[in-house]
Amino acid sequence: MAYVATAPMSAQQQDDRPIVFGRHPVREWLLSGRRAEKLYVREGLRSPWLAELEALASAQRVPIQRVPGARLDSLTGTRHHQGVALIGGLVAYWALETLLEQAFAQDPRPLLLVLDQIVDPHNVGAILRTAEAAGVQGVIVPKHGAAPISPAVLKTSAGAAVHLAIARATNLVRALQTLKQAGFWVIGADQGADRLLWEQDYSGPTALVIGNEGKGIRPLVRRHCDALVRIPMRGQVASLNASVAAAVLLYAALEDRWRQSLKPYPAA
Amino acid sequence: MAYVATAPMSAQQQDDRPIVFGRHPVREWLLSGRRAEKLYVREGLRSPWLAELEALASAQRVPIQRVPGARLDSLTGTRHHQGVALIGGLVAYWALETLLEQAFAQDPRPLLLVLDQIVDPHNVGAILRTAEAAGVQGVIVPKHGAAPISPAVLKTSAGAAVHLAIARATNLVRALQTLKQAGFWVIGADQGADRLLWEQDYSGPTALVIGNEGKGIRPLVRRHCDALVRIPMRGQVASLNASVAAAVLLYAALEDRWRQSLKPYPAA
Repeated sequence: MAYVATAPMSAQQQDDRPIVFGRHPVREWLLSGRRAEKLYVREGLRSPWLAELEALASAQRVPIQRVPGARLDSLTGTRHHQGVALIGGLVAYWALETLLEQAFAQDPRPLLLVLDQIVDPHNVGAILRTAEAAGVQGVIVPKHGAAPISPAVLKTSAGAAVHLAIARATNLVRALQTLKQAGFWVIGADQGADRLLWEQDYSGPTALVIGNEGKGIRPLVRRHCDALVRIPMRGQVASLNASVAAAVLLYAALEDRWRQSLKPYPAA
Repeated sequence: MAYVATAPMSAQQQDDRPIVFGRHPVREWLLSGRRAEKLYVREGLRSPWLAELEALASAQRVPIQRVPGARLDSLTGTRHHQGVALIGGLVAYWALETLLEQAFAQDPRPLLLVLDQIVDPHNVGAILRTAEAAGVQGVIVPKHGAAPISPAVLKTSAGAAVHLAIARATNLVRALQTLKQAGFWVIGADQGADRLLWEQDYSGPTALVIGNEGKGIRPLVRRHCDALVRIPMRGQVASLNASVAAAVLLYAALEDRWRQSLKPYPAA
Protein backbone atom coordinates (compact mmCIF):
# COMPACT_ATOMS: atom_id res chain seq x y z
CA MET A 1 0.00 0.00 0.00
CA ALA A 2 1.58 3.19 -1.16
CA TYR A 3 -0.02 5.32 1.46
CA VAL A 4 0.77 3.32 4.55
CA ALA A 5 4.33 3.46 5.84
CA THR A 6 5.74 1.64 8.82
CA ALA A 7 8.56 3.73 10.20
CA PRO A 8 9.87 4.61 13.63
CA MET A 9 8.95 8.13 14.67
CA SER A 10 10.86 8.77 17.82
CA ALA A 11 12.49 6.83 20.61
CA GLN A 12 9.10 6.45 22.23
CA GLN A 13 7.38 5.24 19.11
CA GLN A 14 9.86 2.72 17.79
CA ASP A 15 7.32 0.01 17.35
CA ASP A 16 5.52 -0.86 14.18
CA ARG A 17 2.31 1.06 14.48
CA PRO A 18 1.16 1.98 11.00
CA ILE A 19 1.60 5.53 9.71
CA VAL A 20 -1.15 6.52 7.28
CA PHE A 21 -0.92 9.72 5.21
CA GLY A 22 -2.74 11.60 2.49
CA ARG A 23 -6.28 12.97 2.58
CA HIS A 24 -8.18 9.86 1.44
CA PRO A 25 -6.21 7.14 3.29
CA VAL A 26 -6.51 9.07 6.56
CA ARG A 27 -10.26 9.57 6.01
CA GLU A 28 -10.75 5.88 5.24
CA TRP A 29 -8.80 4.86 8.31
CA LEU A 30 -10.86 7.10 10.56
CA LEU A 31 -14.13 5.85 9.06
CA SER A 32 -13.06 2.16 9.24
CA GLY A 33 -13.32 1.93 13.01
CA ARG A 34 -9.65 0.96 13.22
CA ARG A 35 -7.76 2.56 16.08
CA ALA A 36 -5.92 5.81 15.71
CA GLU A 37 -3.49 7.29 18.20
CA LYS A 38 -2.74 10.71 16.76
CA LEU A 39 -3.50 12.94 13.78
CA TYR A 40 -0.72 15.23 12.54
CA VAL A 41 -1.74 18.27 10.45
CA ARG A 42 0.58 20.73 8.68
CA GLU A 43 0.66 24.16 10.27
CA GLY A 44 -1.45 26.67 8.34
CA LEU A 45 -3.41 24.05 6.40
CA ARG A 46 -7.12 24.98 6.03
CA SER A 47 -9.74 23.22 3.90
CA PRO A 48 -13.24 21.73 4.17
CA TRP A 49 -11.92 18.14 3.85
CA LEU A 50 -9.49 18.84 6.70
CA ALA A 51 -12.39 20.05 8.85
CA GLU A 52 -14.10 16.70 8.21
CA LEU A 53 -10.96 14.73 9.19
CA GLU A 54 -10.61 16.79 12.35
CA ALA A 55 -14.25 16.22 13.22
CA LEU A 56 -13.86 12.44 12.72
CA ALA A 57 -10.70 12.42 14.84
CA SER A 58 -12.29 14.47 17.62
CA ALA A 59 -15.31 12.20 17.74
CA GLN A 60 -12.94 9.29 18.42
CA ARG A 61 -10.88 11.26 20.93
CA VAL A 62 -7.82 11.09 18.67
CA PRO A 63 -5.44 13.94 19.61
CA ILE A 64 -4.69 16.39 16.77
CA GLN A 65 -1.31 18.08 16.53
CA ARG A 66 -0.21 20.88 14.17
CA VAL A 67 3.39 20.37 13.01
CA PRO A 68 5.69 21.97 10.42
CA GLY A 69 5.60 20.43 6.94
CA ALA A 70 9.20 19.19 7.37
CA ARG A 71 8.09 17.09 10.34
CA LEU A 72 5.44 15.42 8.18
CA ASP A 73 8.01 14.83 5.43
CA SER A 74 10.34 12.97 7.81
CA LEU A 75 7.50 11.16 9.52
CA THR A 76 6.07 9.77 6.29
CA GLY A 77 9.31 9.58 4.32
CA THR A 78 7.75 11.48 1.44
CA ARG A 79 6.48 14.94 0.47
CA HIS A 80 3.24 13.54 -0.90
CA HIS A 81 1.29 13.51 2.35
CA GLN A 82 -1.08 16.39 1.52
CA GLY A 83 -0.43 17.83 4.97
CA VAL A 84 -2.00 15.03 7.03
CA ALA A 85 -0.65 11.88 8.66
CA LEU A 86 -2.15 9.55 11.22
CA ILE A 87 -0.55 7.11 13.67
CA GLY A 88 -2.65 3.99 13.70
CA GLY A 89 -3.16 2.31 17.05
CA LEU A 90 -2.72 -1.37 17.87
CA VAL A 91 -5.49 -1.69 20.41
CA ALA A 92 -8.55 0.29 21.36
CA TYR A 93 -8.01 2.57 24.29
CA TRP A 94 -11.20 3.54 26.00
CA ALA A 95 -12.01 6.48 28.19
CA LEU A 96 -12.45 5.01 31.68
CA GLU A 97 -16.02 6.31 31.96
CA THR A 98 -16.99 4.70 28.64
CA LEU A 99 -15.33 1.45 29.67
CA LEU A 100 -17.32 1.43 32.94
CA GLU A 101 -20.62 2.20 31.20
CA GLN A 102 -20.09 -0.62 28.74
CA ALA A 103 -18.91 -2.99 31.49
CA PHE A 104 -22.19 -2.52 33.40
CA ALA A 105 -24.16 -2.85 30.17
CA GLN A 106 -22.54 -6.26 29.62
CA ASP A 107 -22.73 -7.58 33.15
CA PRO A 108 -24.38 -6.24 36.32
CA ARG A 109 -21.31 -7.44 38.26
CA PRO A 110 -18.43 -6.64 35.93
CA LEU A 111 -14.93 -7.99 36.49
CA LEU A 112 -12.04 -5.65 35.69
CA LEU A 113 -8.30 -6.10 35.88
CA VAL A 114 -5.98 -3.26 36.93
CA LEU A 115 -2.25 -3.57 36.18
CA ASP A 116 0.01 -1.45 38.38
CA GLN A 117 3.30 -1.03 36.54
CA ILE A 118 3.92 -4.42 35.01
CA VAL A 119 7.11 -3.65 33.09
CA ASP A 120 7.80 -6.87 31.17
CA PRO A 121 5.97 -6.86 27.81
CA HIS A 122 5.72 -10.66 27.92
CA ASN A 123 3.96 -10.49 31.26
CA VAL A 124 1.56 -7.81 30.02
CA GLY A 125 0.80 -9.87 26.90
CA ALA A 126 0.33 -13.08 28.90
CA ILE A 127 -1.95 -11.30 31.38
CA LEU A 128 -4.10 -9.81 28.61
CA ARG A 129 -4.45 -13.27 27.04
CA THR A 130 -5.65 -14.75 30.31
CA ALA A 131 -7.91 -11.76 31.04
CA GLU A 132 -9.60 -12.16 27.67
CA ALA A 133 -10.08 -15.91 28.16
CA ALA A 134 -11.47 -15.28 31.64
CA GLY A 135 -14.00 -12.89 30.11
CA VAL A 136 -13.16 -9.66 31.96
CA GLN A 137 -15.12 -6.58 30.88
CA GLY A 138 -12.02 -4.38 30.79
CA VAL A 139 -8.40 -3.77 31.74
CA ILE A 140 -6.92 -0.60 33.21
CA VAL A 141 -3.23 0.12 32.72
CA PRO A 142 -1.20 3.12 33.83
CA LYS A 143 -0.15 5.53 31.08
CA HIS A 144 3.40 5.76 32.44
CA GLY A 145 5.82 3.38 34.14
CA ALA A 146 4.42 0.22 32.55
CA ALA A 147 5.07 -1.71 29.36
CA PRO A 148 3.00 -0.07 26.58
CA ILE A 149 0.67 -2.23 24.50
CA SER A 150 3.29 -2.81 21.81
CA PRO A 151 3.40 -5.31 18.94
CA ALA A 152 5.39 -7.63 21.25
CA VAL A 153 2.63 -7.43 23.86
CA LEU A 154 0.00 -8.06 21.20
CA LYS A 155 1.89 -11.12 19.99
CA THR A 156 2.33 -12.62 23.46
CA SER A 157 -1.37 -12.04 24.08
CA ALA A 158 -2.08 -14.36 21.13
CA GLY A 159 -4.08 -11.50 19.63
CA ALA A 160 -6.40 -11.31 22.64
CA ALA A 161 -5.45 -7.68 23.36
CA VAL A 162 -7.42 -6.39 20.36
CA HIS A 163 -10.63 -7.88 21.77
CA LEU A 164 -10.25 -6.22 25.15
CA ALA A 165 -11.52 -2.85 26.31
CA ILE A 166 -8.38 -1.19 27.70
CA ALA A 167 -8.26 2.15 29.45
CA ARG A 168 -5.04 4.03 30.16
CA ALA A 169 -5.00 5.93 33.43
CA THR A 170 -2.72 8.94 33.89
CA ASN A 171 -3.21 8.57 37.64
CA LEU A 172 -4.01 5.04 38.79
CA VAL A 173 -5.10 6.13 42.28
CA ARG A 174 -7.65 8.50 40.77
CA ALA A 175 -8.83 5.69 38.49
CA LEU A 176 -9.37 3.45 41.54
CA GLN A 177 -11.40 6.23 43.17
CA THR A 178 -13.55 6.46 40.04
CA LEU A 179 -14.05 2.68 40.16
CA LYS A 180 -15.10 2.80 43.80
CA GLN A 181 -17.56 5.60 43.13
CA ALA A 182 -19.00 3.45 40.34
CA GLY A 183 -19.62 0.67 42.88
CA PHE A 184 -16.55 -1.50 42.35
CA TRP A 185 -14.85 -3.40 45.12
CA VAL A 186 -11.10 -3.01 44.56
CA ILE A 187 -9.07 -6.11 45.53
CA GLY A 188 -5.29 -6.13 45.36
CA ALA A 189 -2.94 -9.14 45.23
CA ASP A 190 -0.40 -8.65 48.00
CA GLN A 191 1.88 -11.30 49.47
CA GLY A 192 1.85 -9.51 52.82
CA ALA A 193 -1.93 -9.83 53.18
CA ASP A 194 -3.46 -11.94 55.95
CA ARG A 195 -6.44 -13.00 53.90
CA LEU A 196 -6.11 -15.84 51.40
CA LEU A 197 -7.51 -15.18 47.96
CA TRP A 198 -10.01 -18.01 48.61
CA GLU A 199 -11.51 -16.17 51.60
CA GLN A 200 -12.54 -13.15 49.54
CA ASP A 201 -16.02 -12.42 48.18
CA TYR A 202 -15.87 -11.48 44.49
CA SER A 203 -19.61 -11.48 43.82
CA GLY A 204 -20.13 -7.73 43.28
CA PRO A 205 -18.58 -5.43 40.67
CA THR A 206 -14.91 -6.29 41.18
CA ALA A 207 -11.59 -4.75 40.12
CA LEU A 208 -8.53 -6.96 40.70
CA VAL A 209 -5.20 -5.16 41.05
CA ILE A 210 -1.92 -6.88 40.10
CA GLY A 211 1.36 -5.18 40.97
CA ASN A 212 4.85 -4.92 39.57
CA GLU A 213 6.83 -8.17 39.08
CA GLY A 214 9.37 -7.42 41.79
CA LYS A 215 7.89 -4.77 44.03
CA GLY A 216 4.22 -5.65 43.99
CA ILE A 217 1.52 -3.00 44.19
CA ARG A 218 2.82 0.50 44.99
CA PRO A 219 2.06 1.57 48.60
CA LEU A 220 -0.23 4.44 47.58
CA VAL A 221 -2.19 2.19 45.21
CA ARG A 222 -2.33 -0.52 47.89
CA ARG A 223 -3.87 1.93 50.37
CA HIS A 224 -6.66 2.57 47.91
CA CYS A 225 -7.63 -1.10 47.72
CA ASP A 226 -10.71 -2.20 49.64
CA ALA A 227 -9.14 -5.58 50.37
CA LEU A 228 -5.79 -7.30 49.94
CA VAL A 229 -5.47 -11.03 49.33
CA ARG A 230 -2.53 -13.41 49.32
CA ILE A 231 -1.79 -16.39 47.09
CA PRO A 232 -0.32 -19.07 49.37
CA MET A 233 3.10 -20.44 48.45
CA ARG A 234 4.99 -23.30 49.99
CA GLY A 235 8.17 -23.87 48.00
CA GLN A 236 11.74 -22.77 48.64
CA VAL A 237 11.81 -20.29 45.77
CA ALA A 238 8.26 -19.24 46.53
CA SER A 239 7.53 -16.65 43.93
CA LEU A 240 4.99 -16.67 41.16
CA ASN A 241 5.38 -14.99 37.81
CA ALA A 242 3.12 -11.90 37.56
CA SER A 243 1.07 -13.46 34.77
CA VAL A 244 0.60 -16.65 36.79
CA ALA A 245 -0.47 -14.62 39.85
CA ALA A 246 -2.97 -12.71 37.70
CA ALA A 247 -4.37 -15.97 36.31
CA VAL A 248 -4.73 -17.59 39.73
CA LEU A 249 -6.50 -14.51 41.10
CA LEU A 250 -8.81 -14.10 38.08
CA TYR A 251 -9.87 -17.74 38.25
CA ALA A 252 -10.39 -17.55 42.02
CA ALA A 253 -12.84 -14.71 41.35
CA LEU A 254 -14.59 -16.71 38.60
CA GLU A 255 -14.80 -19.73 40.89
CA ASP A 256 -16.32 -17.69 43.72
CA ARG A 257 -18.97 -16.35 41.35
CA TRP A 258 -19.66 -19.83 40.04
CA ARG A 259 -20.03 -21.16 43.59
CA GLN A 260 -22.35 -18.35 44.62
CA SER A 261 -24.61 -18.41 41.61
CA LEU A 262 -24.33 -22.14 40.91
CA LYS A 263 -25.12 -21.39 37.28
CA PRO A 264 -23.35 -23.88 35.06
CA TYR A 265 -20.96 -22.41 32.54
CA PRO A 266 -21.88 -23.07 28.92
CA ALA A 267 -20.00 -26.00 27.39
CA ALA A 268 -16.70 -25.07 25.75
CA MET B 1 38.65 -24.44 36.31
CA ALA B 2 41.03 -26.35 34.16
CA TYR B 3 39.22 -29.62 34.49
CA VAL B 4 35.69 -28.52 33.75
CA ALA B 5 34.87 -27.83 30.13
CA THR B 6 31.56 -26.65 28.76
CA ALA B 7 31.30 -27.99 25.27
CA PRO B 8 28.53 -29.34 23.08
CA MET B 9 28.65 -33.10 22.76
CA SER B 10 26.13 -33.97 20.15
CA ALA B 11 22.96 -32.55 18.66
CA GLN B 12 21.06 -33.87 21.63
CA GLN B 13 23.39 -32.42 24.20
CA GLN B 14 23.98 -28.94 22.83
CA ASP B 15 23.20 -27.23 26.08
CA ASP B 16 25.70 -26.07 28.64
CA ARG B 17 25.79 -28.96 31.04
CA PRO B 18 29.25 -29.14 32.54
CA ILE B 19 31.73 -31.76 31.35
CA VAL B 20 34.09 -32.85 34.08
CA PHE B 21 37.17 -35.00 33.33
CA GLY B 22 40.20 -36.42 35.03
CA ARG B 23 40.32 -38.88 37.94
CA HIS B 24 40.16 -36.40 40.83
CA PRO B 25 37.64 -33.88 39.43
CA VAL B 26 35.23 -36.70 38.52
CA ARG B 27 35.60 -38.23 41.98
CA GLU B 28 34.99 -34.85 43.67
CA TRP B 29 31.92 -34.23 41.53
CA LEU B 30 30.44 -37.63 42.41
CA LEU B 31 31.14 -37.13 46.12
CA SER B 32 29.75 -33.57 46.14
CA GLY B 33 26.13 -34.56 45.72
CA ARG B 34 25.87 -32.55 42.53
CA ARG B 35 23.91 -34.17 39.75
CA ALA B 36 25.58 -36.37 37.18
CA GLU B 37 23.98 -37.60 33.98
CA LYS B 38 26.57 -39.97 32.58
CA LEU B 39 30.05 -41.31 33.20
CA TYR B 40 32.24 -42.05 30.18
CA VAL B 41 35.16 -44.47 30.66
CA ARG B 42 37.85 -45.34 28.10
CA GLU B 43 37.58 -48.86 26.73
CA GLY B 44 40.06 -51.20 28.35
CA LEU B 45 40.81 -48.96 31.33
CA ARG B 46 41.17 -50.91 34.61
CA SER B 47 42.33 -49.59 37.96
CA PRO B 48 41.29 -49.54 41.64
CA TRP B 49 40.45 -45.78 41.48
CA LEU B 50 38.24 -46.46 38.47
CA ALA B 51 36.41 -49.15 40.42
CA GLU B 52 35.70 -46.53 43.11
CA LEU B 53 34.36 -44.03 40.55
CA GLU B 54 32.16 -46.72 39.03
CA ALA B 55 30.82 -47.67 42.45
CA LEU B 56 30.01 -44.04 43.27
CA ALA B 57 28.29 -43.59 39.91
CA SER B 58 26.29 -46.80 40.28
CA ALA B 59 25.12 -45.81 43.76
CA GLN B 60 23.67 -42.63 42.23
CA ARG B 61 22.17 -44.43 39.24
CA VAL B 62 24.50 -42.59 36.86
CA PRO B 63 24.80 -44.62 33.63
CA ILE B 64 28.37 -45.70 32.77
CA GLN B 65 29.46 -46.00 29.15
CA ARG B 66 32.73 -47.39 27.77
CA VAL B 67 33.94 -45.40 24.75
CA PRO B 68 37.10 -45.27 22.61
CA GLY B 69 39.81 -42.86 23.79
CA ALA B 70 39.26 -40.70 20.70
CA ARG B 71 35.67 -40.08 21.79
CA LEU B 72 36.91 -38.83 25.16
CA ASP B 73 39.49 -36.61 23.42
CA SER B 74 36.82 -34.90 21.34
CA LEU B 75 34.34 -34.75 24.19
CA THR B 76 36.76 -33.01 26.56
CA GLY B 77 38.80 -31.14 23.95
CA THR B 78 42.03 -32.51 25.42
CA ARG B 79 44.04 -35.72 25.77
CA HIS B 80 44.56 -35.15 29.50
CA HIS B 81 41.35 -36.73 30.71
CA GLN B 82 42.93 -39.86 32.25
CA GLY B 83 40.26 -41.97 30.57
CA VAL B 84 37.23 -40.63 32.47
CA ALA B 85 34.71 -37.86 31.81
CA LEU B 86 31.39 -37.07 33.40
CA ILE B 87 28.40 -35.08 32.14
CA GLY B 88 27.10 -33.02 35.03
CA GLY B 89 23.35 -32.72 35.32
CA LEU B 90 21.32 -29.59 35.88
CA VAL B 91 18.56 -31.08 37.97
CA ALA B 92 18.06 -34.20 40.01
CA TYR B 93 16.16 -36.89 38.18
CA TRP B 94 14.52 -39.38 40.46
CA ALA B 95 13.46 -42.93 39.81
CA LEU B 96 9.65 -42.84 39.83
CA GLU B 97 9.44 -45.35 42.69
CA THR B 98 11.82 -43.28 44.85
CA LEU B 99 9.88 -40.12 44.03
CA LEU B 100 6.62 -41.78 45.11
CA GLU B 101 8.12 -43.12 48.34
CA GLN B 102 9.44 -39.71 49.27
CA ALA B 103 6.18 -38.01 48.24
CA PHE B 104 4.20 -40.17 50.68
CA ALA B 105 6.83 -39.61 53.36
CA GLN B 106 6.30 -35.85 53.00
CA ASP B 107 2.53 -35.82 52.75
CA PRO B 108 -0.12 -38.52 53.12
CA ARG B 109 -1.99 -36.95 50.18
CA PRO B 110 0.82 -35.92 47.82
CA LEU B 111 0.21 -33.65 44.86
CA LEU B 112 2.13 -34.45 41.68
CA LEU B 113 2.24 -32.78 38.29
CA VAL B 114 2.57 -34.78 35.07
CA LEU B 115 3.61 -32.94 31.87
CA ASP B 116 2.59 -34.67 28.65
CA GLN B 117 4.83 -33.30 25.88
CA ILE B 118 5.10 -29.63 26.69
CA VAL B 119 7.53 -28.59 23.95
CA ASP B 120 8.24 -24.93 24.70
CA PRO B 121 11.14 -24.61 27.17
CA HIS B 122 9.64 -21.36 28.52
CA ASN B 123 6.41 -23.13 29.31
CA VAL B 124 8.23 -26.00 31.02
CA GLY B 125 10.28 -23.51 33.06
CA ALA B 126 7.23 -21.43 33.99
CA ILE B 127 5.31 -24.56 34.99
CA LEU B 128 8.16 -25.82 37.19
CA ARG B 129 8.34 -22.43 38.91
CA THR B 130 4.63 -22.52 39.70
CA ALA B 131 4.75 -26.18 40.74
CA GLU B 132 7.53 -25.44 43.21
CA ALA B 133 5.69 -22.43 44.64
CA ALA B 134 2.52 -24.52 44.94
CA GLY B 135 4.48 -27.09 46.93
CA VAL B 136 4.03 -30.19 44.78
CA GLN B 137 5.90 -33.30 45.91
CA GLY B 138 7.14 -34.10 42.42
CA VAL B 139 6.91 -33.65 38.67
CA ILE B 140 6.86 -36.37 36.03
CA VAL B 141 8.01 -35.53 32.51
CA PRO B 142 8.30 -37.79 29.48
CA LYS B 143 11.81 -38.73 28.45
CA HIS B 144 11.06 -38.05 24.77
CA GLY B 145 8.93 -35.60 22.83
CA ALA B 146 9.10 -32.84 25.42
CA ALA B 147 11.44 -29.95 26.12
CA PRO B 148 14.37 -31.31 28.21
CA ILE B 149 15.25 -29.62 31.48
CA SER B 150 17.83 -27.35 29.84
CA PRO B 151 19.59 -24.25 31.16
CA ALA B 152 16.85 -22.16 29.46
CA VAL B 153 14.19 -24.12 31.35
CA LEU B 154 16.12 -23.71 34.60
CA LYS B 155 16.37 -19.96 34.04
CA THR B 156 12.67 -19.51 33.27
CA SER B 157 11.87 -21.54 36.38
CA ALA B 158 13.69 -18.85 38.41
CA GLY B 159 15.86 -21.66 39.78
CA ALA B 160 12.87 -23.54 41.15
CA ALA B 161 13.63 -26.63 39.05
CA VAL B 162 16.62 -27.58 41.19
CA HIS B 163 14.41 -27.85 44.28
CA LEU B 164 11.91 -30.18 42.65
CA ALA B 165 11.91 -33.95 42.56
CA ILE B 166 11.58 -34.71 38.84
CA ALA B 167 11.18 -38.16 37.32
CA ARG B 168 11.56 -38.88 33.63
CA ALA B 169 9.22 -41.52 32.26
CA THR B 170 10.14 -43.51 29.17
CA ASN B 171 6.48 -44.44 28.85
CA LEU B 172 4.05 -41.97 30.37
CA VAL B 173 1.08 -44.36 30.24
CA ARG B 174 3.02 -46.92 32.25
CA ALA B 175 3.99 -44.17 34.71
CA LEU B 176 0.30 -43.30 35.17
CA GLN B 177 -0.45 -46.97 35.82
CA THR B 178 2.27 -47.01 38.48
CA LEU B 179 0.76 -43.88 40.03
CA LYS B 180 -2.71 -45.45 40.12
CA GLN B 181 -1.37 -48.61 41.73
CA ALA B 182 0.27 -46.39 44.36
CA GLY B 183 -3.14 -44.91 45.16
CA PHE B 184 -3.08 -41.74 43.08
CA TRP B 185 -6.13 -40.26 41.42
CA VAL B 186 -5.01 -39.09 37.94
CA ILE B 187 -6.78 -35.91 36.77
CA GLY B 188 -6.19 -34.48 33.30
CA ALA B 189 -6.87 -30.94 32.06
CA ASP B 190 -8.96 -31.29 28.91
CA GLN B 191 -10.99 -28.55 27.25
CA GLY B 192 -13.44 -31.15 25.95
CA ALA B 193 -14.34 -32.34 29.46
CA ASP B 194 -17.86 -31.84 30.85
CA ARG B 195 -16.69 -31.34 34.41
CA LEU B 196 -15.37 -27.96 35.53
CA LEU B 197 -12.10 -28.03 37.44
CA TRP B 198 -14.00 -26.61 40.44
CA GLU B 199 -16.30 -29.65 40.58
CA GLN B 200 -13.45 -32.10 41.12
CA ASP B 201 -12.34 -33.57 44.45
CA TYR B 202 -8.56 -33.27 44.89
CA SER B 203 -8.38 -34.42 48.50
CA GLY B 204 -6.59 -37.74 48.00
CA PRO B 205 -3.18 -38.46 46.51
CA THR B 206 -3.52 -36.55 43.24
CA ALA B 207 -1.59 -36.41 39.96
CA LEU B 208 -2.55 -33.53 37.65
CA VAL B 209 -1.83 -34.04 33.94
CA ILE B 210 -1.18 -31.06 31.65
CA GLY B 211 -0.97 -31.64 27.89
CA ASN B 212 0.81 -30.20 24.91
CA GLU B 213 0.32 -26.49 24.16
CA GLY B 214 -1.61 -27.05 20.95
CA LYS B 215 -2.90 -30.60 21.02
CA GLY B 216 -3.62 -31.11 24.69
CA ILE B 217 -3.17 -34.49 26.35
CA ARG B 218 -2.50 -37.36 23.92
CA PRO B 219 -5.55 -39.64 23.48
CA LEU B 220 -3.85 -42.70 24.99
CA VAL B 221 -2.70 -40.70 28.01
CA ARG B 222 -6.17 -39.14 28.32
CA ARG B 223 -7.77 -42.61 28.44
CA HIS B 224 -5.59 -43.44 31.42
CA CYS B 225 -6.84 -40.48 33.44
CA ASP B 226 -9.41 -41.19 36.18
CA ALA B 227 -11.10 -37.84 35.55
CA LEU B 228 -10.90 -34.98 33.07
CA VAL B 229 -11.64 -31.39 34.00
CA ARG B 230 -12.14 -28.23 31.98
CA ILE B 231 -11.06 -24.66 32.70
CA PRO B 232 -13.96 -22.42 31.62
CA MET B 233 -13.20 -19.72 29.07
CA ARG B 234 -15.44 -16.96 27.82
CA GLY B 235 -13.40 -14.73 25.50
CA GLN B 236 -13.18 -14.60 21.73
CA VAL B 237 -9.63 -15.93 21.59
CA ALA B 238 -10.38 -18.36 24.37
CA SER B 239 -7.13 -20.15 24.89
CA LEU B 240 -4.86 -20.24 27.89
CA ASN B 241 -1.11 -20.58 27.81
CA ALA B 242 -0.04 -24.05 29.05
CA SER B 243 1.75 -22.57 32.06
CA VAL B 244 -1.33 -20.53 32.98
CA ALA B 245 -3.56 -23.61 32.64
CA ALA B 246 -1.18 -25.56 34.90
CA ALA B 247 -1.22 -22.77 37.49
CA VAL B 248 -5.01 -22.47 37.51
CA LEU B 249 -5.39 -26.24 37.91
CA LEU B 250 -2.71 -26.52 40.63
CA TYR B 251 -4.30 -23.74 42.65
CA ALA B 252 -7.78 -25.20 42.19
CA ALA B 253 -6.43 -28.39 43.78
CA LEU B 254 -4.82 -26.43 46.63
CA GLU B 255 -8.05 -24.51 47.19
CA ASP B 256 -10.13 -27.69 47.33
CA ARG B 257 -7.76 -29.13 49.94
CA TRP B 258 -7.88 -25.90 51.92
CA ARG B 259 -11.69 -25.90 51.82
CA GLN B 260 -11.91 -29.52 52.90
CA SER B 261 -9.42 -29.38 55.73
CA LEU B 262 -10.04 -25.75 56.68
CA LYS B 263 -6.53 -25.63 58.03
CA PRO B 264 -5.12 -22.12 57.69
CA TYR B 265 -1.96 -21.87 55.62
CA PRO B 266 1.07 -20.58 57.51
CA ALA B 267 1.70 -16.85 56.95
CA ALA B 268 3.90 -16.02 53.96
